[in-house]
Amino acid sequence: MSLGEFELIARLLRPLASGFPGALELGDDAALVEVPSDRQLVVAKDAIVEGVHFLPDDPPELVAGKLLRVNLSDLAAMGADPLAYLTVIARPPHLEDRWLEDFARGLADDQARFGLHLIGGDTVATPGPLLLSLTVLGLVPRGAALLRSGARPGELVCVSGTLGDAAMGLRILRGLAVPEELVPPLVERYRTPRPRLALGRALRGLASAAIDVSDGLLADLGHVLERSSVGAEIELARLPLSEAARGLPGARSCALSGGDDYELLFTLPQQHEGLLPELATRAGVPIAVIGRTTTEPGLRVLDPEGRPMTIERTGWRHF
Amino acid sequence: MSLGEFELIARLLRPLASGFPGALELGDDAALVEVPSDRQLVVAKDAIVEGVHFLPDDPPELVAGKLLRVNLSDLAAMGADPLAYLTVIARPPHLEDRWLEDFARGLADDQARFGLHLIGGDTVATPGPLLLSLTVLGLVPRGAALLRSGARPGELVCVSGTLGDAAMGLRILRGLAVPEELVPPLVERYRTPRPRLALGRALRGLASAAIDVSDGLLADLGHVLERSSVGAEIELARLPLSEAARGLPGARSCALSGGDDYELLFTLPQQHEGLLPELATRAGVPIAVIGRTTTEPGLRVLDPEGRPMTIERTGWRHF
Repeated sequence: MSLGEFELIARLLRPLASGFPGALELGDDAALVEVPSDRQLVVAKDAIVEGVHFLPDDPPELVAGKLLRVNLSDLAAMGADPLAYLTVIARPPHLEDRWLEDFARGLADDQARFGLHLIGGDTVATPGPLLLSLTVLGLVPRGAALLRSGARPGELVCVSGTLGDAAMGLRILRGLAVPEELVPPLVERYRTPRPRLALGRALRGLASAAIDVSDGLLADLGHVLERSSVGAEIELARLPLSEAARGLPGARSCALSGGDDYELLFTLPQQHEGLLPELATRAGVPIAVIGRTTTEPGLRVLDPEGRPMTIERTGWRHF
Repeated sequence: MSLGEFELIARLLRPLASGFPGALELGDDAALVEVPSDRQLVVAKDAIVEGVHFLPDDPPELVAGKLLRVNLSDLAAMGADPLAYLTVIARPPHLEDRWLEDFARGLADDQARFGLHLIGGDTVATPGPLLLSLTVLGLVPRGAALLRSGARPGELVCVSGTLGDAAMGLRILRGLAVPEELVPPLVERYRTPRPRLALGRALRGLASAAIDVSDGLLADLGHVLERSSVGAEIELARLPLSEAARGLPGARSCALSGGDDYELLFTLPQQHEGLLPELATRAGVPIAVIGRTTTEPGLRVLDPEGRPMTIERTGWRHF
């Protein structure tokens, strides 16, 4: 038997609102949110579709985690702190209550981990695939948000963690054969993004621009360059690759164009270069300098011999 | 040819963000929203699915209007002023660009009418039906939000406008034969909700509880009673019916249980009864007193002879 909407909300979702008075126990027309006068609200909204962004047999807890973390990654890229979120669950007839229970448990785990609460949303029936949408709210000190538009020529182009692991993990899920011990770390990178919230926070007042790497390094750096009206030159040899991905065919291609890494890509004025080790320590993630911004527009990738490379694929589009 | 995601955003949606600096031209990871220190943020999120909440041949402008207005109605029920919204468009392969163009035009018209801006969202591909989700943000003076939980025994139960028209409009769209001149006003009530924002605003500090009638009078009044821990008695003869619906079979049943009217249902302390004519004038909509709240729990409907009626259907659920 399928849970009705009201029972679903009451039993699975209402506990996720507990501890946030403005959520009004998910029992009112809308939620109330306090924004301290020295803060700005930061809002982002994403959606994922079964069969497109996740697979029918993906564990529901991980789907919940990915949905929440992808949105938290947007907050990280703005330098914001998580506050609250709203969900839409568009439920196909075939979906078991059990799936929703596990999904809610995944939300519960991650909202505790990242310090935010469910405050509202909607559940609807759909004859189509399961669709999940999430709106995340965060807070940032007034005027301190990291934007894509602040990069200036002559700054360092930096990225956290390692690149290409998630794309490699997806290739493995789709059948790429790799040594057995490499499967878990790479697949986990694809399934469980790590939003770099501590790094985003640490970069306030330092980074001139930031974005999270969701569409792929080239595409996302391209967004920063376009919004900032600068160019950039990056060096292939400097791309941070994980131990797991390093030896696999296509690792550099995944690092350049693979999506879903959810690392932070940011530009840093040269004068702050000496702070990078401390920033990495505070954020708990390595930071690599992969190039610099230029007055000349466009994005150039230099091969290990310093020669400009021709890049064909600049990340993927959603449709 | 189908527009890619970036082109779609640039061409159709970006103009809707113009005039709201914190939308960052829909070109950043998230939007920035200022909340004045004497205000609270009000947030609601809804979704509608093709074939469930709207029909494939419904005019796209009207679908856009309904999506936005349904959410604005939630703001009205909280006594909030509209500020901004975010959308998710889950796009099936068959959907023409033309549909999206008309949809965007519908959003443009209504956001100008109601004074809010698009500030973000997501577009994704889906193999299923078109799904549209909207998150609306509003502002309310601190502490002045109208909640469902504030009703006390002995207050007036009031409702704006007329009830049952939208449900009758839907019956007509599904084939109910009615005199020709009744079709436009009833179908329009179903397709184009009128969020009672001015009334919500006028009720701040006066109404003890409020909700918008989306699931049907009985169901929505039930929500207020449950959240407020009171009962109510309403009189069938007092339900406000439109000229168009009045003579049709099932008019009272539609008024009791039909959804989608998006009128405001509220409770008003007896001492404010004398303000009702002025409230109606300020809000530009009639207000009817349909009953009163009681200490005795539960909802009782009295027939024209004052006898309690047995009610079978108390509104519909979403799945």
